[in-house]
Amino acid sequence: QMPRGNLETVHHRALVLAQLRRWLDDLKFREAFECMRKLRINLNLIYDHSPKVFLENIETFITQLNSINHINLFLTELREEDTTSTMYPRPESTPVQLPPASGLKVDVVCDALRSAMESMDPNKSVIQHIVTYLNCLTNDLDSFIAVKVCRLCRCNQQGDIKGSPPSRFCLSILTAHVKKTVPELEVALQKVHELRENPPEAPGAVNAEEALKYLLFLVNVNDLYEHSLGTYDFDLVLMVAEKSQKDPKEYLPFLNMLKSLELNYQRYTIDRHLKRYRKALFHLSKCGEEHFPEALQLVKEQKLYSEALRLFTTNSAHYKALSCAYAEHLVEQQQVEQAGLLLWRCGESVGALQAFASSSSWRNAICVAQHIPLPPDQLALLARDLAEKLTEQRRYSEAALLLDQYAKDCEEAILALITGAVWEEALRLTYMHNRQDITETNLKPALLEAVNTQAAFLEAQLATFSRHRTRLAVVREQKQKARLDMLDEDGPDCPDAELYSEASSVMTGSKYSHSNSRISSRSSKNRRKAERKKLSLKEGSPMEDRALMCALGEIITTVDKMREEVHNLLKALVLFQFDKQAEKLQAAFEEALQTMETAVPEVWPEGLQQNQAPITGPNSTANTIMASFQQQQQRPAASQDAELPAPPKMRNGVKWKLTILK
Amino acid sequence: QMPRGNLETVHHRALVLAQLRRWLDDLKFREAFECMRKLRINLNLIYDHSPKVFLENIETFITQLNSINHINLFLTELREEDTTSTMYPRPESTPVQLPPASGLKVDVVCDALRSAMESMDPNKSVIQHIVTYLNCLTNDLDSFIAVKVCRLCRCNQQGDIKGSPPSRFCLSILTAHVKKTVPELEVALQKVHELRENPPEAPGAVNAEEALKYLLFLVNVNDLYEHSLGTYDFDLVLMVAEKSQKDPKEYLPFLNMLKSLELNYQRYTIDRHLKRYRKALFHLSKCGEEHFPEALQLVKEQKLYSEALRLFTTNSAHYKALSCAYAEHLVEQQQVEQAGLLLWRCGESVGALQAFASSSSWRNAICVAQHIPLPPDQLALLARDLAEKLTEQRRYSEAALLLDQYAKDCEEAILALITGAVWEEALRLTYMHNRQDITETNLKPALLEAVNTQAAFLEAQLATFSRHRTRLAVVREQKQKARLDMLDEDGPDCPDAELYSEASSVMTGSKYSHSNSRISSRSSKNRRKAERKKLSLKEGSPMEDRALMCALGEIITTVDKMREEVHNLLKALVLFQFDKQAEKLQAAFEEALQTMETAVPEVWPEGLQQNQAPITGPNSTANTIMASFQQQQQRPAASQDAELPAPPKMRNGVKWKLTILK
Repeated sequence: QMPRGNLETVHHRALVLAQLRRWLDDLKFREAFECMRKLRINLNLIYDHSPKVFLENIETFITQLNSINHINLFLTELREEDTTSTMYPRPESTPVQLPPASGLKVDVVCDALRSAMESMDPNKSVIQHIVTYLNCLTNDLDSFIAVKVCRLCRCNQQGDIKGSPPSRFCLSILTAHVKKTVPELEVALQKVHELRENPPEAPGAVNAEEALKYLLFLVNVNDLYEHSLGTYDFDLVLMVAEKSQKDPKEYLPFLNMLKSLELNYQRYTIDRHLKRYRKALFHLSKCGEEHFPEALQLVKEQKLYSEALRLFTTNSAHYKALSCAYAEHLVEQQQVEQAGLLLWRCGESVGALQAFASSSSWRNAICVAQHIPLPPDQLALLARDLAEKLTEQRRYSEAALLLDQYAKDCEEAILALITGAVWEEALRLTYMHNRQDITETNLKPALLEAVNTQAAFLEAQLATFSRHRTRLAVVREQKQKARLDMLDEDGPDCPDAELYSEASSVMTGSKYSHSNSRISSRSSKNRRKAERKKLSLKEGSPMEDRALMCALGEIITTVDKMREEVHNLLKALVLFQFDKQAEKLQAAFEEALQTMETAVPEVWPEGLQQNQAPITGPNSTANTIMASFQQQQQRPAASQDAELPAPPKMRNGVKWKLTILK
Repeated sequence: QMPRGNLETVHHRALVLAQLRRWLDDLKFREAFECMRKLRINLNLIYDHSPKVFLENIETFITQLNSINHINLFLTELREEDTTSTMYPRPESTPVQLPPASGLKVDVVCDALRSAMESMDPNKSVIQHIVTYLNCLTNDLDSFIAVKVCRLCRCNQQGDIKGSPPSRFCLSILTAHVKKTVPELEVALQKVHELRENPPEAPGAVNAEEALKYLLFLVNVNDLYEHSLGTYDFDLVLMVAEKSQKDPKEYLPFLNMLKSLELNYQRYTIDRHLKRYRKALFHLSKCGEEHFPEALQLVKEQKLYSEALRLFTTNSAHYKALSCAYAEHLVEQQQVEQAGLLLWRCGESVGALQAFASSSSWRNAICVAQHIPLPPDQLALLARDLAEKLTEQRRYSEAALLLDQYAKDCEEAILALITGAVWEEALRLTYMHNRQDITETNLKPALLEAVNTQAAFLEAQLATFSRHRTRLAVVREQKQKARLDMLDEDGPDCPDAELYSEASSVMTGSKYSHSNSRISSRSSKNRRKAERKKLSLKEGSPMEDRALMCALGEIITTVDKMREEVHNLLKALVLFQFDKQAEKLQAAFEEALQTMETAVPEVWPEGLQQNQAPITGPNSTANTIMASFQQQQQRPAASQDAELPAPPKMRNGVKWKLTILK
């Protein structure tokens, strides 16, 4: 990188960089800066060379440069890039410099420089000392004086100067605001505005006009205009507008219209114009009754429901209207229960009832119904409707509660419980309502049917299980054989090594995962889904072994889940003297569980890596072994990609057996 | 293996075996047998050489040998051992003979020989033909004749000869019974007994006396005596006793006493003497009313409750007495609920109530109480007692049901639900009983308390989580560093390799598992338990990283389990306008879940094998690389032993967030 068009001075870059590093280490920022500017070396290096040192000595840097222009140059050249790792690599011996972890580099440097420049303003520090002193005064008169002094100094009682005073670093401070990753245009504009309000007295100090010009030089004029509107300061807007190329006929009528509006409505209009809808809503909510429809419209358009609810008192009509609108929206979003909550709490009982009923939130629905209150016959109807829905969702206990307590139909309730195999609760209701007749007519037959159903289900599951298990053994043997054959034929150093390596990955079933093993883990979830779809139980499918393992795992989980149900069924059977049936079921379930438990170590052998031994043999060399090893190294990751099915956990802690059955 | 003391005939074994194989293949059993006997070659080879061929040609074998003594010799020499794999290995070229999978070899051969010999009895087959013919006759007179003929032939109508007739293979058949893995002494004795009943008419046939003598030669006399008692045949007993060395003064009084007893009681006494308690109980149960106390005693002593219940009709007093005894036993065995079931179904309501109440089987308890029926005030008391127990077990919903429906105390019920954070159900009861006052006095304060508790809990969990997480990073770095240092110092081919390998396993934390890696997987569960105990969170403990992973996993599971509870709390908060508190909680929980989710890939990196790269370097050779690889091969198993904690599953499918909260 030679300076262009200047043949007189040719410098060896390594030497230059070494010199620069020395200067920077010695905090000779000025020398470094001058040299870099001359030889067009990227100024980021000043920071990148040693971020910590730079940040700790930032005032020295400012003092040495001592030039607004130079500081601005440094600021504008800042980039989100570490030049020591891209353009100017460090010499190998230097220890690695970790950049301060917090935040983006550009923002860190901008903020650090700005606050340094602000605190270096001599006026400001004097004022701060005065304020601190004044704040120590305690009596009323003293306070009064303190307030006055503060006002005189254009600062608040904490000594924070309103905006920044006409500082000698004014332009650099503006630059620091504007160069941030998300430019702080409004703050910059605010500062310009203050310069205008309090023109600097010092001769040669930057005035508002100049500052604005400078800003326009840094920022797109339209952006600046929009942001100036956002300060709600029409003078500032005008200033910016005048500097811009905009046609006064265009903006003046708009500004005049705005000026004619009530303050809050004016701000709302500006916010809305700038698409700042949250702020717009805030201001509009202060505009009183007559503007509420407009607010509601805005809320609906921009879906600002939560924000809107916060702006109105909970008991107001507005709050209710907003709640209703929100509920409508939530219903569309399939959040019907939450809609119900909103409607209920704002007193819209009928709407709430509807919402709760249609979302099967039956407890809330019943509460609202009793709150309204519905007449008993309608309550009973509602309970029946809800119960029907719950029955469809197999929530039999809840359905029974509704039928029993609200529809006052204990028979239906008991039947629902029997259908749901909730035997003990069914029995409880028969005794509660003295309907033991149902035991004979329904409960006992249902028990006998249930025991048959369960036995048949278990048998079917076991049959599928052993079919899959046998097939898995066959598939594994075939794959192992195929692999051994391959090894016999071609060593890894044979000319067909390429071919071999691909074939081998097919055989271990990681065909898909292999090619994917370098994709970042971010997308691994989606990949796994896709992967699972590729699993097929069809004989001869490439991942058949995995598919079989998945299927076996699912059967185990299904059967394991039956523990509670079987336990309850067994107890009910024993109670009604159906000991033989109970014994049979217990034996069948026990056998099923045992078969599965003994199958687990076979289907999911410890460290399923048995076919991943490194390829060795008389022809092997250190290099071929390493190559084969590395190939396998990729596999653990790869097999995780293809999600090698994990062995299912059996809940042996759940005791289901009855000791009284043998 | 040369024949001892016979120097004249020296044979080369390989040649002999080859010849034997040829004979066996040609079904020349006689030649083979003679030769083997002469040269003392193990007779098992006849079967082992080709089990299938032997079993298919067993009659040929018998016919060729044509000698009881030879058959007995073959039977007595049978052993559970495959001589073709131990003594007389097959020539390499022959295909492997799979032994028939079903059953033990000795039993298979004994049974096959015996049934062949039985069916080869000429008398028997003649009789069978007659019976088959007779059975085809249909009219009454024919049947009468058939029955007579059958009786004459000492067989039943199906042509099965009662016991075995005086067969010429009699002694061999006895041998086949006695040589089985579990000797069938009773069957053998039965046959001897029949020989005595129907002495053989053929001259030279074996009589009972001879058969018994032969049996005594094969079996210990005391065993035979005991088993003869078990046939309940006193003549047989006497025969055996006489042949034994027993003193008649010893056994005669006993036998006479037995003879004096009623048949069933006699058999009971014998069974009891032989410690065959199940049979004893069976016979005793037939001895009528006056012996029931003895039966009950036996049941209690031998814990034969289930068997006993099967022997009595369900409505009898005996059944009830047995049920009560069983229940008492079950209570001692901590199976109180099952005791309750037994008591209830036999009508012991009070006992059942007690059992159900003390096992918190509250539904059954209430049913029994209403079945008795308890007066309302006692029912209410019972309900309160049960509710208290359930509350202690944090089963608040059930406690509330009892309080509400049986103790008729809705206020207590609602308070129980509030304590259990079952908000919706609590609200339902307030509306049901029109007690909305409780909402203000208890429900709302409880909600606010709950939100604080949850927030504090989350905060504590998060704090522990990040402390462990940070520490885990430190520990891992230290281990990695220690490993690298070790590699730098000593290559695997240095003289300290031994030392190295041990130190390395300490570093990867598999110190304990390493030494255990060869123990069979049977005991792996116990080992894992012990392993887990060794995990300690103490800084510097050898498995600290694993302990930290476990602890982190537990926190994740705990927090993940809160989804439902937080969801319900949020809904209740929103309903009562506690939006701010709800928002805070939602944000806190969201943050917690996110922190944990992002931590998972860091704490459980994919294929945690990063420090298991093979040891390579300029000094490595194929052998050293292989050695280091093999060392690592052991590790997957080893790390499973130490149960490398698996990443916990987060139930992201459980939606808990409210969209109305931002």
